[in-house]
Amino acid sequence: MGRWEPGAKDRLREAALALYLEHGFEQTMAADIAERAGVTVRTFFRHFADKREVLFDESSELLEKSLATLDAALPTVSTLDAVAAALDTAAGMIGSDRELAQKRHTVIMADANLRERELIKQAYMSAALADGLRRRGIGDAEASLASETGLAVFRVAFQRWVDATEDLDLRDAMRQSFAQLRSLTASS
Amino acid sequence: MGRWEPGAKDRLREAALALYLEHGFEQTMAADIAERAGVTVRTFFRHFADKREVLFDESSELLEKSLATLDAALPTVSTLDAVAAALDTAAGMIGSDRELAQKRHTVIMADANLRERELIKQAYMSAALADGLRRRGIGDAEASLASETGLAVFRVAFQRWVDATEDLDLRDAMRQSFAQLRSLTASS
Repeated sequence: MGRWEPGAKDRLREAALALYLEHGFEQTMAADIAERAGVTVRTFFRHFADKREVLFDESSELLEKSLATLDAALPTVSTLDAVAAALDTAAGMIGSDRELAQKRHTVIMADANLRERELIKQAYMSAALADGLRRRGIGDAEASLASETGLAVFRVAFQRWVDATEDLDLRDAMRQSFAQLRSLTASS
Repeated sequence: MGRWEPGAKDRLREAALALYLEHGFEQTMAADIAERAGVTVRTFFRHFADKREVLFDESSELLEKSLATLDAALPTVSTLDAVAAALDTAAGMIGSDRELAQKRHTVIMADANLRERELIKQAYMSAALADGLRRRGIGDAEASLASETGLAVFRVAFQRWVDATEDLDLRDAMRQSFAQLRSLTASS
């Protein structure tokens, strides 16, 4: 990097989210974001491939760390608990900044293309978790079922968390949703 | 309709799937489909809004009938069983023609835009089922969790069904997946 720009990436992300919320994602250009963040457009593109990546650039790290948790789970851990552990890692990362997550979520929900992108990322995460379970020797159908179910729980917990008016931890919200799933299946 | 064209819609659907599989979805035009089906292009557009709708035109009927089942479920039926009943209706409709479902699935999986479209339809179905549960007086989080979980079960059962080399009924596959979900949650 040419100049030392402490926190440029975070400033760019904050500026981008503010502009997406104010003017809409489509109407905001990389140059607007750079200007708001007080950096050059070149600096923007040094940190993000494009304006969409400001919203999705952390998903590969999220997936990587979640998979590492899954792989590290003891063989004695049940299939669904292994998935829950992996998603707990994801929840810990996403949950560290609720305001940012809320803004990001609002921006994504307001744009059909971004919503599609988010769905694809989740489907990709589910497939990767299922692969991870297969590496643990779990059968094909059980692996898919556990990962799809885990993602379902995650989506519901996440929605509850971003909507919550009271103090709520995303990891707690997820644990509650997993408990609710157990009671749903037990009573059916 | 101008002329009486018995089975034109079914012939168009069959011709479209065959062409999508042979040449790819992108490369196939409405005129090619009409020609293969032995009808005019005008007839094609009388039955389908565009070539993509050949793959997705039945989803609104599917949703409507599934919701009718959900609404008809007795109040004593558990939340997840109500979802299972709704999805059983969907499975009965989709499951009536496995060869067609397999072809459709192959075509969709081969095209990124179609895969996205399919994900969106499923997300829409999940949201509609959750709304249906709320109409039954089910709480917000429980409604979302049950519908998302139901769709997860459905996806896994559907995949198992289209991949199956042996004789398998989609409704049975779904019942098996629901049973597997119960055992997954019981052991976690």
